[in-house]
Amino acid sequence: MSKEKRILVNQENEIPFHNGMDFCVGTGRMFLALHKEYYEQLKMVQEAIGFKYIRGHGLFFSDMSIVHTYKDELGRDAVEYNFTYLDRVIDSYLSLGIRPFLELTFMPEHMASSGETTTFEWKANITPPKNHKEWTDMVQATLRHLLEHYGREEVLKWPIEVWNEPNQEDFWKDADMQSYFKLYEHTALAIKEVDPDFIVGGPAISGQLDEIWMRAFLEFVRDKKLPLDFVSRHNYIPHPPDKVGRYSYVKLCDIDFWLEPLDKTKAIIESFPEFKGIDIHITEYSTSYLPNCTIHDTNLNAAYIAAVLSRLGDKHVSYSYWTFSDVFEEKGVPFTPFHGGFGMVANNCIPKPTFWTFAFYKKLQGKCVHRSEEAIIMQLPNENYRGVLWNIDFKYNGEIMELLLQLPVKYNEYCLITKTVDEECCNPLKLWHDMGEPANLSAEQTAILKEHAVPLIKSESIVPVNSITEIKVTLNPNAVIYFELNRVERKTDRGYSYERTLKGEL
Amino acid sequence: MSKEKRILVNQENEIPFHNGMDFCVGTGRMFLALHKEYYEQLKMVQEAIGFKYIRGHGLFFSDMSIVHTYKDELGRDAVEYNFTYLDRVIDSYLSLGIRPFLELTFMPEHMASSGETTTFEWKANITPPKNHKEWTDMVQATLRHLLEHYGREEVLKWPIEVWNEPNQEDFWKDADMQSYFKLYEHTALAIKEVDPDFIVGGPAISGQLDEIWMRAFLEFVRDKKLPLDFVSRHNYIPHPPDKVGRYSYVKLCDIDFWLEPLDKTKAIIESFPEFKGIDIHITEYSTSYLPNCTIHDTNLNAAYIAAVLSRLGDKHVSYSYWTFSDVFEEKGVPFTPFHGGFGMVANNCIPKPTFWTFAFYKKLQGKCVHRSEEAIIMQLPNENYRGVLWNIDFKYNGEIMELLLQLPVKYNEYCLITKTVDEECCNPLKLWHDMGEPANLSAEQTAILKEHAVPLIKSESIVPVNSITEIKVTLNPNAVIYFELNRVERKTDRGYSYERTLKGEL
Amino acid sequence: MSKEKRILVNQENEIPFHNGMDFCVGTGRMFLALHKEYYEQLKMVQEAIGFKYIRGHGLFFSDMSIVHTYKDELGRDAVEYNFTYLDRVIDSYLSLGIRPFLELTFMPEHMASSGETTTFEWKANITPPKNHKEWTDMVQATLRHLLEHYGREEVLKWPIEVWNEPNQEDFWKDADMQSYFKLYEHTALAIKEVDPDFIVGGPAISGQLDEIWMRAFLEFVRDKKLPLDFVSRHNYIPHPPDKVGRYSYVKLCDIDFWLEPLDKTKAIIESFPEFKGIDIHITEYSTSYLPNCTIHDTNLNAAYIAAVLSRLGDKHVSYSYWTFSDVFEEKGVPFTPFHGGFGMVANNCIPKPTFWTFAFYKKLQGKCVHRSEEAIIMQLPNENYRGVLWNIDFKYNGEIMELLLQLPVKYNEYCLITKTVDEECCNPLKLWHDMGEPANLSAEQTAILKEHAVPLIKSESIVPVNSITEIKVTLNPNAVIYFELNRVERKTDRGYSYERTLKGEL
Amino acid sequence: MSKEKRILVNQENEIPFHNGMDFCVGTGRMFLALHKEYYEQLKMVQEAIGFKYIRGHGLFFSDMSIVHTYKDELGRDAVEYNFTYLDRVIDSYLSLGIRPFLELTFMPEHMASSGETTTFEWKANITPPKNHKEWTDMVQATLRHLLEHYGREEVLKWPIEVWNEPNQEDFWKDADMQSYFKLYEHTALAIKEVDPDFIVGGPAISGQLDEIWMRAFLEFVRDKKLPLDFVSRHNYIPHPPDKVGRYSYVKLCDIDFWLEPLDKTKAIIESFPEFKGIDIHITEYSTSYLPNCTIHDTNLNAAYIAAVLSRLGDKHVSYSYWTFSDVFEEKGVPFTPFHGGFGMVANNCIPKPTFWTFAFYKKLQGKCVHRSEEAIIMQLPNENYRGVLWNIDFKYNGEIMELLLQLPVKYNEYCLITKTVDEECCNPLKLWHDMGEPANLSAEQTAILKEHAVPLIKSESIVPVNSITEIKVTLNPNAVIYFELNRVERKTDRGYSYERTLKGEL
Repeated sequence: MSKEKRILVNQENEIPFHNGMDFCVGTGRMFLALHKEYYEQLKMVQEAIGFKYIRGHGLFFSDMSIVHTYKDELGRDAVEYNFTYLDRVIDSYLSLGIRPFLELTFMPEHMASSGETTTFEWKANITPPKNHKEWTDMVQATLRHLLEHYGREEVLKWPIEVWNEPNQEDFWKDADMQSYFKLYEHTALAIKEVDPDFIVGGPAISGQLDEIWMRAFLEFVRDKKLPLDFVSRHNYIPHPPDKVGRYSYVKLCDIDFWLEPLDKTKAIIESFPEFKGIDIHITEYSTSYLPNCTIHDTNLNAAYIAAVLSRLGDKHVSYSYWTFSDVFEEKGVPFTPFHGGFGMVANNCIPKPTFWTFAFYKKLQGKCVHRSEEAIIMQLPNENYRGVLWNIDFKYNGEIMELLLQLPVKYNEYCLITKTVDEECCNPLKLWHDMGEPANLSAEQTAILKEHAVPLIKSESIVPVNSITEIKVTLNPNAVIYFELNRVERKTDRGYSYERTLKGEL
Repeated sequence: MSKEKRILVNQENEIPFHNGMDFCVGTGRMFLALHKEYYEQLKMVQEAIGFKYIRGHGLFFSDMSIVHTYKDELGRDAVEYNFTYLDRVIDSYLSLGIRPFLELTFMPEHMASSGETTTFEWKANITPPKNHKEWTDMVQATLRHLLEHYGREEVLKWPIEVWNEPNQEDFWKDADMQSYFKLYEHTALAIKEVDPDFIVGGPAISGQLDEIWMRAFLEFVRDKKLPLDFVSRHNYIPHPPDKVGRYSYVKLCDIDFWLEPLDKTKAIIESFPEFKGIDIHITEYSTSYLPNCTIHDTNLNAAYIAAVLSRLGDKHVSYSYWTFSDVFEEKGVPFTPFHGGFGMVANNCIPKPTFWTFAFYKKLQGKCVHRSEEAIIMQLPNENYRGVLWNIDFKYNGEIMELLLQLPVKYNEYCLITKTVDEECCNPLKLWHDMGEPANLSAEQTAILKEHAVPLIKSESIVPVNSITEIKVTLNPNAVIYFELNRVERKTDRGYSYERTLKGEL
Repeated sequence: MSKEKRILVNQENEIPFHNGMDFCVGTGRMFLALHKEYYEQLKMVQEAIGFKYIRGHGLFFSDMSIVHTYKDELGRDAVEYNFTYLDRVIDSYLSLGIRPFLELTFMPEHMASSGETTTFEWKANITPPKNHKEWTDMVQATLRHLLEHYGREEVLKWPIEVWNEPNQEDFWKDADMQSYFKLYEHTALAIKEVDPDFIVGGPAISGQLDEIWMRAFLEFVRDKKLPLDFVSRHNYIPHPPDKVGRYSYVKLCDIDFWLEPLDKTKAIIESFPEFKGIDIHITEYSTSYLPNCTIHDTNLNAAYIAAVLSRLGDKHVSYSYWTFSDVFEEKGVPFTPFHGGFGMVANNCIPKPTFWTFAFYKKLQGKCVHRSEEAIIMQLPNENYRGVLWNIDFKYNGEIMELLLQLPVKYNEYCLITKTVDEECCNPLKLWHDMGEPANLSAEQTAILKEHAVPLIKSESIVPVNSITEIKVTLNPNAVIYFELNRVERKTDRGYSYERTLKGEL
Repeated sequence: MSKEKRILVNQENEIPFHNGMDFCVGTGRMFLALHKEYYEQLKMVQEAIGFKYIRGHGLFFSDMSIVHTYKDELGRDAVEYNFTYLDRVIDSYLSLGIRPFLELTFMPEHMASSGETTTFEWKANITPPKNHKEWTDMVQATLRHLLEHYGREEVLKWPIEVWNEPNQEDFWKDADMQSYFKLYEHTALAIKEVDPDFIVGGPAISGQLDEIWMRAFLEFVRDKKLPLDFVSRHNYIPHPPDKVGRYSYVKLCDIDFWLEPLDKTKAIIESFPEFKGIDIHITEYSTSYLPNCTIHDTNLNAAYIAAVLSRLGDKHVSYSYWTFSDVFEEKGVPFTPFHGGFGMVANNCIPKPTFWTFAFYKKLQGKCVHRSEEAIIMQLPNENYRGVLWNIDFKYNGEIMELLLQLPVKYNEYCLITKTVDEECCNPLKLWHDMGEPANLSAEQTAILKEHAVPLIKSESIVPVNSITEIKVTLNPNAVIYFELNRVERKTDRGYSYERTLKGEL
């Protein structure tokens, strides 16, 4: 079974396309950045992809050890701050060329209005503060420390988002709108008091009642004339997944359906004259919203994200894939290396197929000359081409796709290079499954999983006919293929013959 | 066009097989070991393969700067030694876990009986010494220095070979037998005088008149009762290659023909009661004997060497592939990264296909259960299998080979892993050719050549039928495939289903 | 003010000395081994010192995430194990050439007989198990996993200690003897059931009532015929320190007083015919027993430990300094880089003076020819000398010590090399104090602290008189000095004159 | 014996000082940049100091293998170029953040007007070309290749100097002026033909007849209206050294005398209206001009260069210390690690004292507030101070210098940090001498030499009196001391007392 498509590029047409895929990436809670495994995975991601910002939860969670109360020498309650771990995390980020996108969560126990309401295996408190002053004092002390330690020029580049998904009961007590707005008000004002050039935004909502929340939030901000430098929200497949034992299983929706909530948010924002054109950051997105949902490890996920990346930049400055790594503990420590974690990278530094989707998109520079349901093609200033192609197997029927690309060119020799990630050539999940799904990898198993989890690279020498190069590409189900078509200026050395080399001395 | 073969393994039969492929490897002249590029290539080779010894020419060539003459304060001729570079080379070797196999060449200018007769672009003097005492003084001074600096226990492990290919006019003035024998006599005795436990051998001859030389050498050693701890010789395709410009082109011979001279040498040695069973080291071998012969860069070379490696251990303790690296200057500095150099590794640290043949053979441990013209299969003590398969395209007709392996097994689930190197999936020469044969690679070109030049890894889950696993492997022309078949003890985690993962939530 | 001493070595006398300083080292809880900072500090320690084993608390603490309960498909209580983090820690240890000395703590919440009794900032449960079977099932499951994953040969080298300081209320509920003995009985038997070759010991007690505990424990083990492969205990300065704010201050005791409890333990053990000669491991020792006691960062601590190391091997196989690193959270995350932490290494990889005491002792090989209150001197088989000298400023009066060493020698030229660590030349605590005690170091501050925190190295050329080398060494207060005296075989190069070099051309 | 000086800084006075010490550094011939040892030394230099450019001889020497002649298929003479090694060198430079300052030498054998006249142990041809076109073809081909491979923007930043020391018979046949001018004319015009934005200069002369040469060169350039973007020359101690065996010994001259030839050159240039204000690059300087002159390894050299660096920027854009490394072969391969080589770094990566003089000067940013015969002091924009102090023992009498610095300050606490390099604390030559001057270092010897060869770092807490900090510094003979005086904002943690820490619990 296979489908065929023909793509005829006209390089005169520039197609709008904003490639914001590398602005930001998601991460497990901030404390995890102290792990060596985390560092190594982030290093790998930065070398192959290179994100500008990183955003996760838990800046103020107890393991970061930032705020402390004690009795002073007169027996009075006093507060003190410890930035040992925060600085260690940020030093590590900066050393890898990535900056924090600060999300202000969670509520320190002693400030919390209730000790009972927590989220995650690690029991983060998600209630409003008893006293907003205690909270904003901590926020201000933290920002002042950062300004002093890292310098104003640097720190003002770090966006600040107030809380995470307050419209979800899992993240904000009773998903109560008014108490979030109050938190936003106090926090945003406190931040600007430290330095009016800090970039502040919210409401970081997810799917649930998102239209109501977004509208109400913007009205609140407008009416109170509060600072708001960007609007943020999240997006995932909305269907509830099916749960079995430690795992969950989800069915994909189509891309338009996935994008619909974002389009509505955009429309709401544009309906406010005060906020028209404001930066929108999708501060989280993925397929499934669960860190044990098996789809994340698949080639299907890689192909789906390839499609998503071709469209997300249309209305948003940035979109932060949730997450770069499976060093993640929201549902506890994973039992196995492949477990449906959010990461682009499986533990033991094994890149998943989706890792390569990002690595491929990173190369899409220049002007866009084609964009469709299965392909995006760019032309560089030097007229070479770069493209990403994909074949999402929505119907789980193993359909192959044959693409015929016709690209106008000027010179008389070209080299086509393809990098293929598909279920046959780069599918570490399958290799791990074939090995017997070992929970604890030996060094040898890790090594072969890493050697396997890379794109298959092929090349072809092309002589254009009538100033057109015709390229035929076969995409296996859930394949993601990167290609580049480069002009060749052949300079064969004196006496060298490749053809003769291949054919023996004859 | 394809051929089919069936391989039925009977694990009761142990087939004789000595895997001596990692004892020694060849190198360009010793001085080159100071190069950073050389070091990086050797590091790569040691990590992926791991040889025990390394042998090359030029220990006493002028660039090593070992021996010097001067006038002492009374105006008399005096000699002094400089081991700065020698120690630097040896420190580097030892740090990479490899030891020198010392070849004593060439003749320092001031000792040479003639200044005119030289070899290589770098003009190494290949004449006998004017005065054997000068030569043996230098040899002894060098060995004494090594003993003092590296310790007796270490240094006595380093075999010493007297000169290189004296039966070739290119390497010994007039290929004169008697003068070589005299050199051997003086040198071997001088070495044993320093320490009788040094391991000394020769005659390091190559194809030309090899039977005559070998017989005469052994008679000479026997008659003079000289020390001889091993016999050494070289082997290459004997056909003269065709030369065009800077390059040469050779036609393969079949493996039996290639082995014939070695068999004859062995027979000659065995005919001497005094030398029966003595260690034989093939201190050089490859396909072509020229460092500009295009075959060395090909998948054909990799497949041919795979066949050779299945047989070379039958009569020889070791066999040293000439060479590990294209950092090599015998015909001058290469103009291009691919130029038919001897190396397993092309410059800029790009592994050639033959590199992987060695990496695959390195894994062949345990007992041999099958050996044929296209395959060698081993069984580990734990009853898992390891094998190497190849398909030499002797006729340049692109014939595919289908192998059906039937391996007896005990347990009820297995994982087959294959690593494939063939003209499609791992052929950096072709990629470089398609790029236009650039003489000077950009960083980007180097990166993609390295990413491409790795085996394609695939896996399969196998449930044996009647205690037999049947494996079907397709070998493209000049493919070399490594496989391992490992028992699987499946431990699926609570709730995990790989099948369901692949099929969506349904 | 200064004191003078003369040390006359007679190399004929071999003085008993067991250098067990590198057998084991202490560490913060096991989970911390996942931190990158921890890894880097351990790497530094292993490179400069090289311990064989590492021991810390918390193998079964919740952050290691080993044991989990759940309801199975029939709704029954079930248990499952997760070794993801354990293996990651052990892989990291083995990669640094160090093995775990397994201490079995603490009580998983769901097994605990009481949820209230905890220790440390991180609230480790220290109550006996409700049901010993649950506990031993976990211990056995863990050991079986380790045997399977790391191999029997390796894992049987890892000693196992049952619990930590049960004679302290801080570590065992009510410091109750009978409940600990019961735990020991169940645990030791369960371990030997898994493999009788496991090495098991206890009771890991600290100062409090130690004589009573030790005697009762040995009687219990003897009477019940329980396995006991080694006896363990801890030792610290017993005086209660004075506490101010976040810190504590302690006054040193003299070395004999410090050793007294150990001598008593030894005597008790020797009084049991069944246990006479059994291995004794001091599984923790230091000056102060508090991780916020300022003495740990000082040169005084380094000098004191130098004295301790000269004597601890007399009665004990090993003694494990508590701890290698300030990555440690028992009293929460440190607020400042220097904070009186237990570590030899301050955070940001700055070696403290005590680090060098260990690095110096590591070099003490050969036979001991002198041991006194201020010096230990060894002679190597090649007759060169190595020694460590110290000057503990017990009275805080800044007294300098002048040592005159007279060492018999055979040859006519020697080179003395000294490495000095004292309050002037290698005192990072002072530098940090002079900097203003910054809580968060800049990269520049860290760099200069590291550059400073190294020994001052000097050399001297010595020509012995009457086969005696006389060495005069001045030790500043709290100095620790390593020296080596090596024979010189001078080989001046042709024309070289050091004297002329120093004096210009004249 | 000691001298005392008082330095009273008035921060209102800005003293002219151009710190051009890091613009360029010298190197052994270009081919040596392929050595691993060279790379490691350059890496060390770049990390600690960081030069912008690197200049050495031998771009066109035969070992770089750039130009080749052959007979084409019709039997005609033809030329071809090989940039394999050139690109490898330049890639290596750029990877270390340093750019080539291209010096065009030597004459390829086949272009040379005479084969007999060579320089150096490695016999570089120093005769004019038979045919200037052959030479300029090669220069142009090389530059065109560089432009294509590294990009115009990058390559135009690399200055180009025509030949080296043509006024010396050792470097240009008969030191013939007219033939050099002719070479300059052809070469400069050829370079500008490739790209008019290339930066071209000369005449790179050294001491001999320098005034005559400089004047004649400028007249020639002016009269012929040739391109000239900068003027270059060299400077060394002019006295002939005394030679013994393999070594030479020189006596220092005073700094003014050393500078005199440069001042004269400057005056000559300024006398030409056409060249007034043109950039002057001192493309080589050091104390002695011989690579076996023992002074280079001493602390005296370090102190002398400290004085020189305080003055060289007054009239020159840059001055390139000859050389960064002892990987150098002009007089053959060194026999011993210390041998009076030109380098800042001895072989085996041991920094010599002079290395630190450069590392210290690198920190001199801000405005100069004091400059004298023994000190230079800068003030940063934040009002902290940085300075370098030195005590040249011109008379070899071991005189100590006591400096009293009085620095005006604003705040009430400061930290003084000093880094001292002197004959006691950082003198690897002495340590090596004391070891017996070993020609071949063991790993252990190398390690201790490196550990020793670092500055001694001390700190002091200073409370200014009347807004003046008084600093007393004792400089041993030939000491070079770097200091920084930084404002302290003390933040003592709750309960911490450094004083109490030092004094026990009392």
